[in-house]
Amino acid sequence: MFSNIKIDKDRLVYVQVKDYIKDMILKGLLRSDEKLPSTREMASMFNVSRNTIIYAYEFLQDEGFVYIKKGKGTFVSNIKVDFQGKWSVNWENEINNYGKLSEKLDIIKHEAKWQKGMISFKSIAPDENLFNVGEFKRAFLNRMSIEGEKVLNYGYAKGYRPLIQYLLKYMENKGVDIQEKDILITNGFTEGFDLILSCITEKGDNIICENPTHNTAIKIMKLHGLNITGVDMEKDGVNLSILEKELQKNKFKISYFVPSYHNPTGIVMSPEKRVCVYNMLKSYNVPIIEDGFNEELRYLGAHVSPIAAFSGSGNSVIYIGSFSKILFPGIRIGWILGDKTLIGYLESVKRARNIHTSSLDQAVFYDYLNCGNFDKYIKKARRVYREKYEFALKCARKYIKNREILGEGGLHIFVKLKNIDARKLLDKCCERRIIFTPGDVFYVDDKGYDTLRLGFSRLNKEDIKRGFMIIGEEIEKLGGYVE
Amino acid sequence: MFSNIKIDKDRLVYVQVKDYIKDMILKGLLRSDEKLPSTREMASMFNVSRNTIIYAYEFLQDEGFVYIKKGKGTFVSNIKVDFQGKWSVNWENEINNYGKLSEKLDIIKHEAKWQKGMISFKSIAPDENLFNVGEFKRAFLNRMSIEGEKVLNYGYAKGYRPLIQYLLKYMENKGVDIQEKDILITNGFTEGFDLILSCITEKGDNIICENPTHNTAIKIMKLHGLNITGVDMEKDGVNLSILEKELQKNKFKISYFVPSYHNPTGIVMSPEKRVCVYNMLKSYNVPIIEDGFNEELRYLGAHVSPIAAFSGSGNSVIYIGSFSKILFPGIRIGWILGDKTLIGYLESVKRARNIHTSSLDQAVFYDYLNCGNFDKYIKKARRVYREKYEFALKCARKYIKNREILGEGGLHIFVKLKNIDARKLLDKCCERRIIFTPGDVFYVDDKGYDTLRLGFSRLNKEDIKRGFMIIGEEIEKLGGYVE
Repeated sequence: MFSNIKIDKDRLVYVQVKDYIKDMILKGLLRSDEKLPSTREMASMFNVSRNTIIYAYEFLQDEGFVYIKKGKGTFVSNIKVDFQGKWSVNWENEINNYGKLSEKLDIIKHEAKWQKGMISFKSIAPDENLFNVGEFKRAFLNRMSIEGEKVLNYGYAKGYRPLIQYLLKYMENKGVDIQEKDILITNGFTEGFDLILSCITEKGDNIICENPTHNTAIKIMKLHGLNITGVDMEKDGVNLSILEKELQKNKFKISYFVPSYHNPTGIVMSPEKRVCVYNMLKSYNVPIIEDGFNEELRYLGAHVSPIAAFSGSGNSVIYIGSFSKILFPGIRIGWILGDKTLIGYLESVKRARNIHTSSLDQAVFYDYLNCGNFDKYIKKARRVYREKYEFALKCARKYIKNREILGEGGLHIFVKLKNIDARKLLDKCCERRIIFTPGDVFYVDDKGYDTLRLGFSRLNKEDIKRGFMIIGEEIEKLGGYVE
Repeated sequence: MFSNIKIDKDRLVYVQVKDYIKDMILKGLLRSDEKLPSTREMASMFNVSRNTIIYAYEFLQDEGFVYIKKGKGTFVSNIKVDFQGKWSVNWENEINNYGKLSEKLDIIKHEAKWQKGMISFKSIAPDENLFNVGEFKRAFLNRMSIEGEKVLNYGYAKGYRPLIQYLLKYMENKGVDIQEKDILITNGFTEGFDLILSCITEKGDNIICENPTHNTAIKIMKLHGLNITGVDMEKDGVNLSILEKELQKNKFKISYFVPSYHNPTGIVMSPEKRVCVYNMLKSYNVPIIEDGFNEELRYLGAHVSPIAAFSGSGNSVIYIGSFSKILFPGIRIGWILGDKTLIGYLESVKRARNIHTSSLDQAVFYDYLNCGNFDKYIKKARRVYREKYEFALKCARKYIKNREILGEGGLHIFVKLKNIDARKLLDKCCERRIIFTPGDVFYVDDKGYDTLRLGFSRLNKEDIKRGFMIIGEEIEKLGGYVE
């Protein structure tokens, strides 16, 4: 009965023997007080060394699965699981509105899925082939040799101190006054935004933002039960007169803006408009959440200050940063820079939610940044993505007719069709193995049915070209309004 | 003016030069359209190679801080930050009830803090000196060579697939039927518990649990606005007649139990009582959240099945697991095992909260587990902690009078004094540089003023002995009721 064990040479053999016997006991194939074969017999049956069996038996004893009678041998403990009869709950009925809404707004679950052989323009994740794994490994080994096992034990809710210090300096280098401010490390932008809304908004509060805007942000605002007012965009950012009209009409608890390479449009809010937006919100006393999305990925032009830099020693702008839109999203590191008092509360909420962000990831990331690797990487990434962006733009102009192309860069282009339903287009393209993100998911209202976002970061030129040609062909077939 | 740069040999030099010049521009020390010294001049001023300066200038140009006039040199861009006047918000007034309550219930902020030279019995974190960093490094390098840069890019909200597969098998090895069940990887127990309550409870719902219980769980239940009913404990788990009385009195949405080495008492619920609790909750149809806390750390006796094993193919028990109470808490990995439909909703909530748990950490942890390192570690850890536990118990019995000691193991002992206020005792002990956790924080009501938890996992024997002696002396001084 002990013959069908398959030994995997990459795993410890005694652990496999132990698990095998445990499994037999749990399945009732070995009964309580049954004597196990001697270690010698077992070793010959399993064709392993006797020491392996001795070690496995020791483990089983430790875990209470067997007991030893001196001089008599090893026996199975009385551990049979008493099945107490099936008890089933219809969980579908137990899920609350928040759970249902989370599922409903989960576009990963409900939008067209990638299948083998498809060209997908859905992703705006960075191309992992640009990551320098060697440098990341070195950062890991270096940090482990400096910090050792400490980084594997509990850390602080606020974050890994050297990383916080590094990021404070980094924000200062963007012109932000860090006096009386502090940083909380989060699991990416998503957690940062969710923590802030959790801490300062109530169901039914008003929030104002660009329209369209970052889909994840819309989801989080909706999950918090906020009333969302979206302000239409122009080529250099939000339309100021609409913004002012809305500010006059309603009292807003908070505002949310993505000034650089705005997702999904790729628009960069001009320096002049940033100043206007800041002053307008100041006069209505509506604090700002600034999403530093892709700020590092500017391809051209002079440095543009984040809005957080306008306030000097004021504390009205909360800045959410994240490198993970361009580097190592898998390790989920972002940060909130804001007023010290506010960060203190957010720290407690963070602790209540998940104690802290992985100390290991923070420490390795710190080492990677501090060595200057990020600067080296971003130089390369900018060049590659800029080239791709320019190529994608050229293809879009050439192959996709009847459209307006927005934005100045980033890892995607945003297309406004004229009188063509992007979801119908998607269905047609899907049949030809091309998928993209329909733009309506980025709108806070029912606008945008005729828009789409085309992410190209992980595609090669050939696929970009072929994909855009097919999209263009399908648009022509769908007709639509031609100027 | 370029003289006071200090070059740190561990960081890339051109990055330091770049940041230095950027800083001067942002501070207005270099003005718009000012010409920078030639690369040759700058190299000699900074005492670095000319290539370093060329590279730094290139970066500054990329980032839009300088521009080049052909044949004329490098000039500062027009990027001065326009301070728009201070705009301050009194954030204290903007924090909502959830934020305020998170802060109020944050014991890290409000309990006695460790200071240099103190002996602290507050921590029940594992002793990091037991971690095998060499094996962890190997797991990292192995996983990186198998998966490469992929683990640094986005992963799945549900978790890293090989880890999910491993944990399903692991749970099966505890006797749990995994048919129609699934696993969601979380940032530790804390996130797991918070996600479940977020998804199925409403403010004002009733929840029933042991009293005392895990402090973090109490905090999360309170933050969800739940009405908490605590059931007194006996030496082998909750008092069944009180449990039944409460179940008769109220309809409970859900229940929460810590059957193994219960925090803070260290009590292990007996196999017989587990069966009774399961059947009683079944008859009142109150699903169970089972906290697998320290289940791996049993020192003695036969294997005890988790409650999740009693339900067979039923789905009424949600199991939250975590190794991080004994291994690598810094990487924050836990899991929820439960009904497939429920896990589907929890996955969407997880995605809305923070996309997913670090792919890197999950992948490395999987490799570490799969090689059998965990089994090796737990054998060692059990031996060391068991020895410490027995020593601590001996010291407690010898030095601390007028008390009842609960529990059978774990990384702490729980002491019930007789008629002595544990907070008064803490004040006195604090003066003598000893701190511990007053037990009242583990009670859902106002009981437990005369209890304390003494964690010893990270202390050596000498400190345990000295600490317990002092605590014992202070108890005697405070008098109290002597039997």
